[in-house]
Amino acid sequence: MRGIVTFTTDFGLRDPFVAVLKGQVLRRSPDLQLVDITHEITRFQPAEAAFWLGRVSRYFPDGTVHLAVVDPGVGTARALVAVSAERQVFLAPDNGLLAAIAARAGAVARRIDLERLAGLGMATSGGPTFHGRDLLAPVAAELAAGRWAFEALGEVTELAADGSLLPVVATATGWRGSVVTVDSFGNLFSNLEHSSHVIAREQVVSIRGLALPWVSTYGEARPGELVALVNSWGLVEIAQVQGNAAVRLGVGRGEPVALEAFAA
Amino acid sequence: MRGIVTFTTDFGLRDPFVAVLKGQVLRRSPDLQLVDITHEITRFQPAEAAFWLGRVSRYFPDGTVHLAVVDPGVGTARALVAVSAERQVFLAPDNGLLAAIAARAGAVARRIDLERLAGLGMATSGGPTFHGRDLLAPVAAELAAGRWAFEALGEVTELAADGSLLPVVATATGWRGSVVTVDSFGNLFSNLEHSSHVIAREQVVSIRGLALPWVSTYGEARPGELVALVNSWGLVEIAQVQGNAAVRLGVGRGEPVALEAFAA
Amino acid sequence: MRGIVTFTTDFGLRDPFVAVLKGQVLRRSPDLQLVDITHEITRFQPAEAAFWLGRVSRYFPDGTVHLAVVDPGVGTARALVAVSAERQVFLAPDNGLLAAIAARAGAVARRIDLERLAGLGMATSGGPTFHGRDLLAPVAAELAAGRWAFEALGEVTELAADGSLLPVVATATGWRGSVVTVDSFGNLFSNLEHSSHVIAREQVVSIRGLALPWVSTYGEARPGELVALVNSWGLVEIAQVQGNAAVRLGVGRGEPVALEAFAA
Repeated sequence: MRGIVTFTTDFGLRDPFVAVLKGQVLRRSPDLQLVDITHEITRFQPAEAAFWLGRVSRYFPDGTVHLAVVDPGVGTARALVAVSAERQVFLAPDNGLLAAIAARAGAVARRIDLERLAGLGMATSGGPTFHGRDLLAPVAAELAAGRWAFEALGEVTELAADGSLLPVVATATGWRGSVVTVDSFGNLFSNLEHSSHVIAREQVVSIRGLALPWVSTYGEARPGELVALVNSWGLVEIAQVQGNAAVRLGVGRGEPVALEAFAA
Repeated sequence: MRGIVTFTTDFGLRDPFVAVLKGQVLRRSPDLQLVDITHEITRFQPAEAAFWLGRVSRYFPDGTVHLAVVDPGVGTARALVAVSAERQVFLAPDNGLLAAIAARAGAVARRIDLERLAGLGMATSGGPTFHGRDLLAPVAAELAAGRWAFEALGEVTELAADGSLLPVVATATGWRGSVVTVDSFGNLFSNLEHSSHVIAREQVVSIRGLALPWVSTYGEARPGELVALVNSWGLVEIAQVQGNAAVRLGVGRGEPVALEAFAA
Repeated sequence: MRGIVTFTTDFGLRDPFVAVLKGQVLRRSPDLQLVDITHEITRFQPAEAAFWLGRVSRYFPDGTVHLAVVDPGVGTARALVAVSAERQVFLAPDNGLLAAIAARAGAVARRIDLERLAGLGMATSGGPTFHGRDLLAPVAAELAAGRWAFEALGEVTELAADGSLLPVVATATGWRGSVVTVDSFGNLFSNLEHSSHVIAREQVVSIRGLALPWVSTYGEARPGELVALVNSWGLVEIAQVQGNAAVRLGVGRGEPVALEAFAA
């Protein structure tokens, strides 16, 4: 069975930076299966990468190695970290990107130790360094090929918190969450989860003071109508049928979303 | 030999929905070769996906499994279908996307039967369902790996017609077709085919009342000139040399294109 | 070990032309590892493809076959060429794209000979021809799979010069180079190389008459400040911290950049 490495970055697809990561992986392990998660993370927003990677990774098989490079601290002294969670491994700068994954039951985080990598035969200095390319990609290649063990990468550590994390808080009548990302159709994804926060259809979703009707599918409402639904990721989503809710409401990431027992 | 699965969607590349399809395929068959056809089909336009998939698939080897998810009826009761044609298999919602492929000589269409999939060990219910991710991707994985047979997927069926299909019709002096897609350079691709409709250079291509000169290559005309040519797909194409014909003419998909024995 | 084929084009990702190249490769060699370098080369700018391919290829393993199709002369009589350099093979139209790679120490260039390809069992005529799809992709597949030898492709040749090449010239006090590409963040990449041209921090980088401060990382300057640095490609780069230098300076490809012993 071929090992799998996935890539999540804010590099975009115009410049060939993603290809450099892949070349570096293939130099060590040419037989791996390489998969792009997305390279269109909003620049320097590890929280957005964290949101998507946490969800998408669940659709990948055991043993997958996920490499994420969204790094506002590029060139600074922030550490590189590896997290083992649910039989997958995640590699990223220690900037909050992996905080939620490291908080999963049974997860272990390790600080990647450059001296140990040198001991494993990897060049870790000399010339200008781009950590994703020169350190994380080779580590991903070795882990996915089964030659290095996660335990050998460094000491167990606590990860940096995700400063931009938008928590869900309990209110007198329900929950208050927020928009965590906007998809390319303008649908607003909240961090309110069906499994944790939605109890019954009697709850009302509101945003910007508007209480929205629940639908099961877009087809239940008229074109142009604003609706709330539990989307295929299990999240409360706010959408405008055949339209763009983000534009219609003039909102983006961070906008509060309330889920209450009675209409606001 | 590794099986091949291709992906054609209107998901775009910003959000990680394509990666979810791939993860679902790799969970079952991690060794497959995965290839993107395009994820920039105009949203909810199965006819555009049909146009491209029908042409691009001919460049892929026997045994390739093509997964296409362009689905304006997402969440409704429309069926999922599989078509076997020219030693390849195509999977899509039954919304006209596969109508032209199912009309090929020797093609067979089957309605995917969720009870049969359950009998093959696949979860087909529980929780919100995204058919591309939860049903078509696993089916593609099993077919491409050679574990399931096309015949086991369900009963032979007639496919839904492609309501947006733009037919070519015979006229007194030739053929009347239409623009079926516009490429990213603004070149207009018609559904007039070299093999079926073009007989001789004496025929004249006209659009918006303009009769266009034939060229063999763009290099034969001056920059800015509007020309007609048989492009590398074997289709009559209308282009502006070093320009954008769609912008120049103010036309798009559906615009009539005439091919006549004498100038209009 | 699986052979690797990379793809560099100006096709964009909307239309499925890249997929056609891949299908053509997989028809002959379904087990290869396929990697996109970029498909967003500025249309008809082989020099930009040359710039990136020359740099990115160094991160790929020995034996990689690089296929590049940026072809303003499509449909004309320009030759197709293959270059062997540093244990990799490069395939492209003979339009300057491979000139710099062919100038590497030990590199050999060959003109692809259609009669020889026919002798190897490849169809080289009949119907409209798209050279990337019909000739270069099959050649890449055969080379990467190890079935054809580079030497069998044709006679050794001199390549067409890169007419748009922007040379670095010595000046009384240093070097004069130019901007060779602009990345998607608006950073200006010059052709001044750390290894060849930068001697000491006492040298000053200037563009549009502005002398810029050197930094080691963006973090050393204030947001909005224009700076010069040696980037992770080993090139002198001009950037605006948390901004867009190309917009700020109103410059693009071809803009002169001076590197001098004393401030301008």
